[in-house]
Amino acid sequence: MNQPAPELDRAVKEIADELRVRTDRGEVASYIPELAKVDPSAFALVVVDTAGNVAAAGDADTLFSIQSISKVFTLTLAIGKVGNRLWQRVGREPSGSPFNSIIQLEFEKGIPRNPFINAGAIAVTDVILSGHQPREALGEILRFVRFLADDSSIAIDKAVAASEQRTGFRNAALANYMKSFGVIENPVEHTLGVYFHHCAIAMTCRQLAMAGRYLAQFGSNPTTGLSVVHPERARRINALMLTCGHYDGSGEFAYRVGLPGKSGVGGGILAVAPGKASIAVWSPGLDASGNSRLGQIALEQLSKRLGWSIFGA
Amino acid sequence: MNQPAPELDRAVKEIADELRVRTDRGEVASYIPELAKVDPSAFALVVVDTAGNVAAAGDADTLFSIQSISKVFTLTLAIGKVGNRLWQRVGREPSGSPFNSIIQLEFEKGIPRNPFINAGAIAVTDVILSGHQPREALGEILRFVRFLADDSSIAIDKAVAASEQRTGFRNAALANYMKSFGVIENPVEHTLGVYFHHCAIAMTCRQLAMAGRYLAQFGSNPTTGLSVVHPERARRINALMLTCGHYDGSGEFAYRVGLPGKSGVGGGILAVAPGKASIAVWSPGLDASGNSRLGQIALEQLSKRLGWSIFGA
Amino acid sequence: MNQPAPELDRAVKEIADELRVRTDRGEVASYIPELAKVDPSAFALVVVDTAGNVAAAGDADTLFSIQSISKVFTLTLAIGKVGNRLWQRVGREPSGSPFNSIIQLEFEKGIPRNPFINAGAIAVTDVILSGHQPREALGEILRFVRFLADDSSIAIDKAVAASEQRTGFRNAALANYMKSFGVIENPVEHTLGVYFHHCAIAMTCRQLAMAGRYLAQFGSNPTTGLSVVHPERARRINALMLTCGHYDGSGEFAYRVGLPGKSGVGGGILAVAPGKASIAVWSPGLDASGNSRLGQIALEQLSKRLGWSIFGA
Amino acid sequence: MNQPAPELDRAVKEIADELRVRTDRGEVASYIPELAKVDPSAFALVVVDTAGNVAAAGDADTLFSIQSISKVFTLTLAIGKVGNRLWQRVGREPSGSPFNSIIQLEFEKGIPRNPFINAGAIAVTDVILSGHQPREALGEILRFVRFLADDSSIAIDKAVAASEQRTGFRNAALANYMKSFGVIENPVEHTLGVYFHHCAIAMTCRQLAMAGRYLAQFGSNPTTGLSVVHPERARRINALMLTCGHYDGSGEFAYRVGLPGKSGVGGGILAVAPGKASIAVWSPGLDASGNSRLGQIALEQLSKRLGWSIFGA
Repeated sequence: MNQPAPELDRAVKEIADELRVRTDRGEVASYIPELAKVDPSAFALVVVDTAGNVAAAGDADTLFSIQSISKVFTLTLAIGKVGNRLWQRVGREPSGSPFNSIIQLEFEKGIPRNPFINAGAIAVTDVILSGHQPREALGEILRFVRFLADDSSIAIDKAVAASEQRTGFRNAALANYMKSFGVIENPVEHTLGVYFHHCAIAMTCRQLAMAGRYLAQFGSNPTTGLSVVHPERARRINALMLTCGHYDGSGEFAYRVGLPGKSGVGGGILAVAPGKASIAVWSPGLDASGNSRLGQIALEQLSKRLGWSIFGA
Repeated sequence: MNQPAPELDRAVKEIADELRVRTDRGEVASYIPELAKVDPSAFALVVVDTAGNVAAAGDADTLFSIQSISKVFTLTLAIGKVGNRLWQRVGREPSGSPFNSIIQLEFEKGIPRNPFINAGAIAVTDVILSGHQPREALGEILRFVRFLADDSSIAIDKAVAASEQRTGFRNAALANYMKSFGVIENPVEHTLGVYFHHCAIAMTCRQLAMAGRYLAQFGSNPTTGLSVVHPERARRINALMLTCGHYDGSGEFAYRVGLPGKSGVGGGILAVAPGKASIAVWSPGLDASGNSRLGQIALEQLSKRLGWSIFGA
Repeated sequence: MNQPAPELDRAVKEIADELRVRTDRGEVASYIPELAKVDPSAFALVVVDTAGNVAAAGDADTLFSIQSISKVFTLTLAIGKVGNRLWQRVGREPSGSPFNSIIQLEFEKGIPRNPFINAGAIAVTDVILSGHQPREALGEILRFVRFLADDSSIAIDKAVAASEQRTGFRNAALANYMKSFGVIENPVEHTLGVYFHHCAIAMTCRQLAMAGRYLAQFGSNPTTGLSVVHPERARRINALMLTCGHYDGSGEFAYRVGLPGKSGVGGGILAVAPGKASIAVWSPGLDASGNSRLGQIALEQLSKRLGWSIFGA
Repeated sequence: MNQPAPELDRAVKEIADELRVRTDRGEVASYIPELAKVDPSAFALVVVDTAGNVAAAGDADTLFSIQSISKVFTLTLAIGKVGNRLWQRVGREPSGSPFNSIIQLEFEKGIPRNPFINAGAIAVTDVILSGHQPREALGEILRFVRFLADDSSIAIDKAVAASEQRTGFRNAALANYMKSFGVIENPVEHTLGVYFHHCAIAMTCRQLAMAGRYLAQFGSNPTTGLSVVHPERARRINALMLTCGHYDGSGEFAYRVGLPGKSGVGGGILAVAPGKASIAVWSPGLDASGNSRLGQIALEQLSKRLGWSIFGA
């Protein structure tokens, strides 16, 4: 069922070659200086298939801020800790609103719509934090991401975290709002501190594609053979990525690419071809919905070329 | 890749046997008398795989009102007529709101979020109507559904259509609202007339599963061999069904069932296992989101048992 | 307590003289051709005090479309018919939203916030209509306005009414929406027909100031000596005009002018200095909230000059 | 124009006598323990007319938490400091939403609708704070209230302030949200600290009625003869109190009482009969909109009995 490695290599290389020269790249996120100073022409595409083949092109070993992609890893960790009780604190429906809108919290008594909008990811972070000090919770998240990627060098970019913390007033509003409904259990500043730090994890496209393998392989880590999450839960995380992974552009991504995916404002996207491959792409320019413009095009081309859409070959 | 026919038969039969005796069926839609008088204990499940095998259980040959499931067929027809220009009149994002909410029309200048909420389906109907008399447009829709199901006996339940027309004030509000933004081109009463009538098409589960084959088979009608819609468009309709097919329960359906699907308040659901099968289920009791309660459970069990989830076996 | 007539005359004349030459007049309403073709330089100001003195300046005897000002008269008529039961169908709170927004109807189960937003005035019209044919209800409204103004020549501009009816899709949306909640009792097209026609009443500023006397004089008609409405109800209509009479500019009008008032998109405003005078002003250019720009300035100057603000001399 | 003192005395006494025995008092605010432990049967009514007569009944010298009534004094202070520039940071329109809703901040780019909803009062507090330390700003507010009431004993209830600060997550959400739009200039915790403390000022009904005299007397303090605020501004503050002073019950208060007023969840209301009197009432039980239930009834009776409604005798 996997593509022969040479064909995969060729697809990745040709798509990267074509996209690296395109100039319609969108705008780099600039709300904090650390994100604004990234090279807008950077581009990387890495595919790791379930046979272990790795196809990489572009700046595959350059670190970037994974931002909201970390929400996939914290969701996985939180489900592992509390199981389905998690869904008492966060919903599973697409939000139909810009990514950090506070409106629906008003209608839905402080319960965020899903774990991939900011409010939902803050609630998930609060679940991981419970019973721990912020430093411990952060350590646990980081160890988990290193385990998934099988790479102990992965670290948090402290300058990014500090900058988010200084300017993250909307997230502070969301957290305080949820706290007023009792949805956040820990002190708001603790929960936000852990949240800002895990969004500031820096990874390369190669590391990110490695970290996503468990979603392509029914929940298990191929290097260690260990189960990361129950296969049914891996499927369900994929379903959430498909319906909610790209803010208000989630329907468009499903429509065009046909793969579960999660984007971050650092310009990265982690996508999954279930049973086939884990895919990471990075291009810092964003579209109006906050998703990497070239990243989405790369994934659309890859999915089409290899027949990987989950909606039909 | 298909299941052997005996295994499929057994799965369909066993699931139907288990579900027919369950009593937690939800409430039958009662907003018009014609829907309220359906037998709440009715249940049917039909699977047609891409090899042409048909597995049926329960009241597979009893007619019911397909209601919103007709939106899949009108969407397919409208895309065939105007192609991607359709997306100037309707969006492709999940709505994140109850199924006939008018709020987001206010924010988004009269453009409905997607073709499967009522407002969106009315806009799609308006596209089909353009240049025709209501009677002609309705004839075209009905001929198209008969062609898909390969069954010329399919008809509209006029009592249901008349009843909807007498009581459909929310839909009239939506249509007038869109008209005020110029999104509806035809006289409101014409567009609504066609809309109410195509929602009143009556079909059996067997007919419905037959009609859905083109979505499982890359856009072509296996009986005739004719292309219904370009394979890429079939994929994209599947993507829309997955993200938007169950009103405010779309995320939940994707999470639990893992298949594209579209429900109607008559209690039917049409689901698609791309490349594998078209599936129709019917049980009139609805959950709080307006989707068949047992229908969803049947699909969850079928998907799990046969490993058909698009998010991983 | 009244101003001596010569002082009143001078104030009206001087304010009119100053304003007639101003060029910052705003835009004339253009959503129907009949309103768009009015002379933008028209200006009139008429004050009728409770002693019966009349001070008039400008185009005081030119007819214009009173539009939403008619809502004051239909509210008075409806209260007379059903008393406080009216408040089961419409609220008394400012709306905090643009004048024909449909959003709050969704939150508040189809009950409009107050009788002066379009939805509320349609609900009030429905109350007047109940038990009558549209033609009879319209006759009753027209007779009531003629009685208030003591002028049997007042009539409906049928071209305006017909034009509103052809293009009033937002109002049709509002009416259908309320009907879906059971707030409208009559057939939607009947209620809308009466509504569009009473908004199309044509009056001169002089007639309008005469018609408003009962609000300045504790509910009685000075010509006939007859009670139009109980004094307490006249006070309460004044309170509603102050809090809700200028769409989303009601707070601004209270803040600057300090008098109860009701504006119409035809450029007229009826204002009340309780116990002192009824005031009508007309200038067709509107501000962003849909209120006559020069009309508001004229009233601000008049209120200040004569010490008529209800919030302190 | 003032009532003879004996008549005023009698009215105040009789209204108090009637209301003190009523049992339909509503619920005492309980979101912080300090407010919940107040005696629910407390009742006080004090009127100070512009001739200096004082009529008092009930627990007129018992301290209570003025809560949102402090917003009138901070608004007056802020207008004195920055004049009309204040309106760049806060609007003047009624909000049409529950008192601490965050939704409209989303629509209106972080600008609160008016100075009397929580968000608006926080923005006004931020204006007063600018260029000062929180302690200095708080001192300035307290000195101003003591000056208005001519009573140097007025103080802040520190237990109330501390409790608000510990539990005020919704207000923290509002402040952070406005900060994200740049509407709050100072550190959020500074602005909130000052806000929570000025809401915790404790006053008696007698002190409160004295403090409100400048609004009844065209902006001047009758004891000192000093101008507190320009007469025009006093009028305008009255207008804001009328349209926005009672959260989502402002229209109802204008309709029934016909006087500018501002309520607090401690059960107090400060009302103004322009040119006639300053009125304070206190009864801790609240209605669904958060306004003192008996307090409103007392004011309705007083206004009716003395013919003080600004909408007509």
